[in-house]
Amino acid sequence: MSDISTLPGTLDTVWQRLFDGVVNRTLPAHTPVLATTGPEGPEARMVVLRAVDRQAGTVEFYSDLRAEKVAQLQADPRATLLIWDAQALLQIRLRARFDVIAGDAAEPQWQALSPPSRTLYGGSPPPGAPLGTPADHCNGPDRAAFAVLRGRLDRIETLLLRPDHHRRAVFTAADGWLGGWRAP
Amino acid sequence: MSDISTLPGTLDTVWQRLFDGVVNRTLPAHTPVLATTGPEGPEARMVVLRAVDRQAGTVEFYSDLRAEKVAQLQADPRATLLIWDAQALLQIRLRARFDVIAGDAAEPQWQALSPPSRTLYGGSPPPGAPLGTPADHCNGPDRAAFAVLRGRLDRIETLLLRPDHHRRAVFTAADGWLGGWRAP
Repeated sequence: MSDISTLPGTLDTVWQRLFDGVVNRTLPAHTPVLATTGPEGPEARMVVLRAVDRQAGTVEFYSDLRAEKVAQLQADPRATLLIWDAQALLQIRLRARFDVIAGDAAEPQWQALSPPSRTLYGGSPPPGAPLGTPADHCNGPDRAAFAVLRGRLDRIETLLLRPDHHRRAVFTAADGWLGGWRAP
Repeated sequence: MSDISTLPGTLDTVWQRLFDGVVNRTLPAHTPVLATTGPEGPEARMVVLRAVDRQAGTVEFYSDLRAEKVAQLQADPRATLLIWDAQALLQIRLRARFDVIAGDAAEPQWQALSPPSRTLYGGSPPPGAPLGTPADHCNGPDRAAFAVLRGRLDRIETLLLRPDHHRRAVFTAADGWLGGWRAP
């Protein structure tokens, strides 16, 4: 971990953990919780972190195009991503606006997926449909049902829990990611 | 884990994990993610599960009364709680409406807290206030800043990831928690 006692070190720590989370399935950053606005209030679910670009300030996830979270992000692109590392006692909170990318624009990501992974997209019936038994569902693949969710970060917040005192920092795109400390 | 291949067994599994999460700090259910609606879109943060009552269908968390999540729940009591168990590959999603309980009504919970735990409530300046350095914050306790967040569950959803096929179930208070299978 970078030097989390400074603001630049804290921001470096967040990005390093995001990068590591893409490739290492055992890390908390591999499976953030994505919170969105649904028709009946706030919604949340685990998503798998697929790509990170610090320069562009973006993160990527994949979804079945027919999943509720896609419709929710199309209706309101604002979202929060939450990573809780129980060992480091570190919470990372990312605020982002999401674009839903499908069809030809999602072809590079689709091509990079393994055949077994592709079967997760395009199952029948669509996600959320009632089933008599779990066996009544057939997996995909259906390339037309594959979507990339790309979030552009506008705010990063960290909270480090320590025995003496907790430590919170906030960084925003608007202030060039300089950041500042906040009361925990 | 109860028999998660049946609907009643799945619901029992959820409640057992919630109960265990209250007392066992190492379990994912000890630290759900709470998603709420904020002024700038959906918000999420880790919270510590403090109490569970299956008969009443309630879960309890504690907060500083001045925290943003309290104001958000007072403005819109709808919330989603998300628990992701990376070992069992089990996601538990709870939808609830929250009451904020403070003052004399929160006295039993306050009395049950250890003195070190009480110092987390009522620090100065209040949560979220800008600080020059992290050391510029003083811990509480201040009993007046202690709040209990009690959520009444109206929907429970599980998603079990399996190599062959994923398995999703939804239970609602409206249908007496009978539940049904859904496409994953």
